[in-house]
Amino acid sequence: MKIPYKIYLEESEMPKEWYNVRADMKNKPAPLLNPATMQPMTLDELSQVFCCELARQELDDATAYIPIPQEIRDFYKMYRPSPLVRAYCLEEKLETPAHIYYKFEGNNTSGSHKLNSAIAQAYYAKMQGLKGVTTETGAGQWGTALSMACSYLGLDCKVFMVKVSYEQKPFRREVMRTYGASITPSPSDTTAVGRKILENHPETGGSLGCAISEAVETANSLEGYRYVLGSVLNQVLLHQSIIGLETKIAMDKYNIKPDIIIGCAGGGSNLGGLISPFAGQKLRGEADMRLIAVEPESCPSLTRGKFAYDFCDTGMICPLSKMYTLGSNYMPASIHAGGLRYHGMSSVVSQLYADGLMEAVSVPQTKVFEAAEEFARVEGILPAPESSHAIRVAIDEALKCKETGEEKNIVFGLTGTGYFDLYAYKRFNDGEMSDYVPSDEEIAASLAKLPNV
Amino acid sequence: MKIPYKIYLEESEMPKEWYNVRADMKNKPAPLLNPATMQPMTLDELSQVFCCELARQELDDATAYIPIPQEIRDFYKMYRPSPLVRAYCLEEKLETPAHIYYKFEGNNTSGSHKLNSAIAQAYYAKMQGLKGVTTETGAGQWGTALSMACSYLGLDCKVFMVKVSYEQKPFRREVMRTYGASITPSPSDTTAVGRKILENHPETGGSLGCAISEAVETANSLEGYRYVLGSVLNQVLLHQSIIGLETKIAMDKYNIKPDIIIGCAGGGSNLGGLISPFAGQKLRGEADMRLIAVEPESCPSLTRGKFAYDFCDTGMICPLSKMYTLGSNYMPASIHAGGLRYHGMSSVVSQLYADGLMEAVSVPQTKVFEAAEEFARVEGILPAPESSHAIRVAIDEALKCKETGEEKNIVFGLTGTGYFDLYAYKRFNDGEMSDYVPSDEEIAASLAKLPNV
Repeated sequence: MKIPYKIYLEESEMPKEWYNVRADMKNKPAPLLNPATMQPMTLDELSQVFCCELARQELDDATAYIPIPQEIRDFYKMYRPSPLVRAYCLEEKLETPAHIYYKFEGNNTSGSHKLNSAIAQAYYAKMQGLKGVTTETGAGQWGTALSMACSYLGLDCKVFMVKVSYEQKPFRREVMRTYGASITPSPSDTTAVGRKILENHPETGGSLGCAISEAVETANSLEGYRYVLGSVLNQVLLHQSIIGLETKIAMDKYNIKPDIIIGCAGGGSNLGGLISPFAGQKLRGEADMRLIAVEPESCPSLTRGKFAYDFCDTGMICPLSKMYTLGSNYMPASIHAGGLRYHGMSSVVSQLYADGLMEAVSVPQTKVFEAAEEFARVEGILPAPESSHAIRVAIDEALKCKETGEEKNIVFGLTGTGYFDLYAYKRFNDGEMSDYVPSDEEIAASLAKLPNV
Repeated sequence: MKIPYKIYLEESEMPKEWYNVRADMKNKPAPLLNPATMQPMTLDELSQVFCCELARQELDDATAYIPIPQEIRDFYKMYRPSPLVRAYCLEEKLETPAHIYYKFEGNNTSGSHKLNSAIAQAYYAKMQGLKGVTTETGAGQWGTALSMACSYLGLDCKVFMVKVSYEQKPFRREVMRTYGASITPSPSDTTAVGRKILENHPETGGSLGCAISEAVETANSLEGYRYVLGSVLNQVLLHQSIIGLETKIAMDKYNIKPDIIIGCAGGGSNLGGLISPFAGQKLRGEADMRLIAVEPESCPSLTRGKFAYDFCDTGMICPLSKMYTLGSNYMPASIHAGGLRYHGMSSVVSQLYADGLMEAVSVPQTKVFEAAEEFARVEGILPAPESSHAIRVAIDEALKCKETGEEKNIVFGLTGTGYFDLYAYKRFNDGEMSDYVPSDEEIAASLAKLPNV
């Protein structure tokens, strides 16, 4: 059977359940700890922060398949199933015998896979009768996705956007406004924590850690609001499993056995979603393949971090998670793949890596942009810098196949488009992009400050 | 049969031929005139400007179906077939009994339908053994599409970008650079016409007319180069017929009879491509439906212009075309739908309109952005301002159905995304957008200067 350029599933073939890889893991991811007591967060405690159903999903490490509510499936149908693309043109360009596939999640206005979890989190908030949600956003992809989901469901959406991004990315802000969200540059004078930071650092451009604190404080201070988060959490990986499930159905349909599956790794939402069903196969002993996480050389949490309990946020007000981390004080170099500048990693992904079910590599950003440009020129999609980390390693693996003559099936996740990253492309096109490799001392100094749990 | 949210054709169902509506027209579009002799352009003369095969396509008003070369079909497969989307969520929001469909052409990095003709024109240039092509671009959609096509085929691509856009839209420029094109702000000192304009108007921000002149001069002065154009021409409408053909195949597959087909109208490339196969049905007496062109109130060539021979460019160096025109000196107000700011209209579309096969309406831009925002919030796609003209009228027609209770099938062309139009959305969100209706005197004064042919 000739494999088409793009495999689109029928709507009837779309998954009706998310897959919870934790159910098949022998070593379960460690629980979140309450920063006040250093004890595992209970359902009650989590329900103060998240909607009840999301708190349940966060804790459920036993149920393998969780039904996707009909309303969410209807929303998914607006932009899903996303295509699994056979990169015929890239293969030809590389002259590789490998077969390269990518699951493209950028075909929606938010431009990334974030929408898969945004609609789920907004839906459960709506079902619980909440008025709205608060969140933080850095580069803006998560904020955009959440704005779209809230607009669709008629929920209020308050986004705290890191001030420097708010000023540098006015267009991202405009997309969110067009979807009816209110955007506040952080730090702001609308919260106690924001006012305090502004008092001490009136000129600060803000940080994700501070924006999280403001979003949490705002949700706590308003009747009928909850805080929501776009990565790292177990619930997010659960929702994102739709990526891997669709990929697997499409491959099964054409009887394609993946040899290598590659995803970029920041907080782990895309990577975890993509690999979950395949990791499940490995865990159940049904199939074997290589799973590869790709991270930036400048923020190498898996390849150079420590597997330990750490704070998820710089402000140290959120629960602690056991994960590969560089330390919550680690300040990643300001590379252009903003979505990968996170000190930690999803605890599910971390546990899979610790158990040897997954590999990890780190790559420098100039090599990433070389791959991005090569890909864009033959495949017609301008990729986001984050996804381009996966492209880099997919190309490298395909070139190895060229040497060995192996006809491997390589699959990678193309999480989004680079429309809002053109400043980064400009730097690259102008030859002004550089790489940064943190020294052993720098990483050791940050890891020395890990909490003593 | 339940109609899915998105109808994707199989690759095997994709058209293998373009449809040339001129073959079915009793009144053929009038020929292009040579500005030097005011006589119809011959094949020889046209071949000095365009590739031979494109010159032939420009003149061929007899062949109904023209095969799409395999290489172009392979390229199409990277981003086509494009989905025909059932706008269930918009219907529900409007509470209309009408069924609304849109053909979405924005799912490729160029962000618009322009790629359909760019790859065809680049392909024929390559086949003729040319080294490269030159063109102009204003907003940048056409330049981006052509850059992508040339990069794919290994052709050189020189784009003259209107200087004010070059400065205001650095990201558009970066996309083209990423695809390997060289971008020159126009007017430039690289051409005689550019130097002359700069001498007389050193501070000018440039114009499309001037950029065309520079692109043409550059093509003429270089061995192995031709000039290419993204709209207005018969050949462009021929290539864009892929939009309408796919739409028709998808509708036939689900036995949907369109009652109204709506497209935005600038130079006519998207509109002409979308309606061609349906206009063909009307011409052959096989089916009937309303075809509606939507233009901006500030640039109303069909609704308030004159059907006459006029220059296609402001510089009056290109051939003359018989079309609905406001006069080549008409300066449209600087509305945000840059792609619709053209004084004339494709001669095919003009003739169909003159013969009563098509209607035309004009709409003010604030109403267009209201429709765009309403659409974005429920359908999850941020539309380009140009396409939003069609959305406006589709919504208006659906609301009429709500009053009458008619279950009409309304189809519109969604030509592209609004990622590069966020400044316009900002103006709208800030309540700073205004409308402009040209006075009768203004239009009469411009029409008074039409050439005497």
